[in-house]
Amino acid sequence: MTGQPAGRRPGESGTREAILAAAKEAFATQGYAATSLRSVARTAGVDPSLVTHFFGSKDGLFEAAIELPVEPGALVDGLLAGGVGSLGERIVRTFLLVWDSTPGQGPMLAMLRSAVSHEDSAAKLRELLLRVILRPLAHGAGGDQPDRRAALLASQVVGLAMTRYVLKLEPIASASPDQLAPVMGKTLQRYLTGPL
Amino acid sequence: MTGQPAGRRPGESGTREAILAAAKEAFATQGYAATSLRSVARTAGVDPSLVTHFFGSKDGLFEAAIELPVEPGALVDGLLAGGVGSLGERIVRTFLLVWDSTPGQGPMLAMLRSAVSHEDSAAKLRELLLRVILRPLAHGAGGDQPDRRAALLASQVVGLAMTRYVLKLEPIASASPDQLAPVMGKTLQRYLTGPL
Repeated sequence: MTGQPAGRRPGESGTREAILAAAKEAFATQGYAATSLRSVARTAGVDPSLVTHFFGSKDGLFEAAIELPVEPGALVDGLLAGGVGSLGERIVRTFLLVWDSTPGQGPMLAMLRSAVSHEDSAAKLRELLLRVILRPLAHGAGGDQPDRRAALLASQVVGLAMTRYVLKLEPIASASPDQLAPVMGKTLQRYLTGPL
Repeated sequence: MTGQPAGRRPGESGTREAILAAAKEAFATQGYAATSLRSVARTAGVDPSLVTHFFGSKDGLFEAAIELPVEPGALVDGLLAGGVGSLGERIVRTFLLVWDSTPGQGPMLAMLRSAVSHEDSAAKLRELLLRVILRPLAHGAGGDQPDRRAALLASQVVGLAMTRYVLKLEPIASASPDQLAPVMGKTLQRYLTGPL
């Protein structure tokens, strides 16, 4: 705890919120690659060292800004705890819940935007999506070739995000989770546990 | 045929090729929205009226630059002529054949790039993908709710393009068509003819 310039003081949580708000705005409008800790600090009107103090790194700031309803590890554990039988459908519902409740679909869509034009952003999204969420799910579901299954999951999950939020392709764009989850959930279920 | 400034003359096919080469380059690097008939003409060193003469419109130029191995209507007819039974798998093979054989995946990837940041490009890609290819396939396959099926097809086809060429997500990025077509083809087959 030595070397931190600020420490606990009145207004600390306000500062953290200001940084997070600036980060969400920056990730959503400029994408992951173009967002720097320095520019976020400037927008929030704080010293850059405070961004590191609260969030550790750009990755940490990004993961906080994604606004998953729970921490990703807990989310994956929660999905797996519900059993493997309906896992595909519950994955679709969870992604839709997170994306639909985030204005502009938040940083995840910003990363998709960056990924199509910047190789390093593509690498970052690939890494986050696979490492944090889909590989743990595929491994937890217990099928063979879990990494191949995780990639297949990604193809349908990313395709859902692209058609619903980017291409706004009807009737997927306006469909309710209850309409989408059963039909796409079956695809994810096969990618998770079916024969490949 | 009146009002055309050029008519048949020596070098006509060379001029057409020069325009097409400039268009492929422009669509691939700048995306659909930022490419104009005027800028393509300038790059090709021809009068803009010649672009209209050979390709009719920006859409016509784009469809020519996509470099589908056959005209889209003929492609759809060919796929449907092979029967509905293995249609899903053959659709995957056809998309992979077109994309894998086009350097940088050509204008289709350029349109994906434009679509994530420009609403009009998203509308254009949505329109082309649905109108020219996926709706005719879904209608031809004879299932109920063909427009809903076409949107589901789009979600997996676009997801395949994103994971293979943009995110370069392994093992999908390096997989052969023989490895990908059976497993993703089953998904498309269900979206085409299965219960929804």
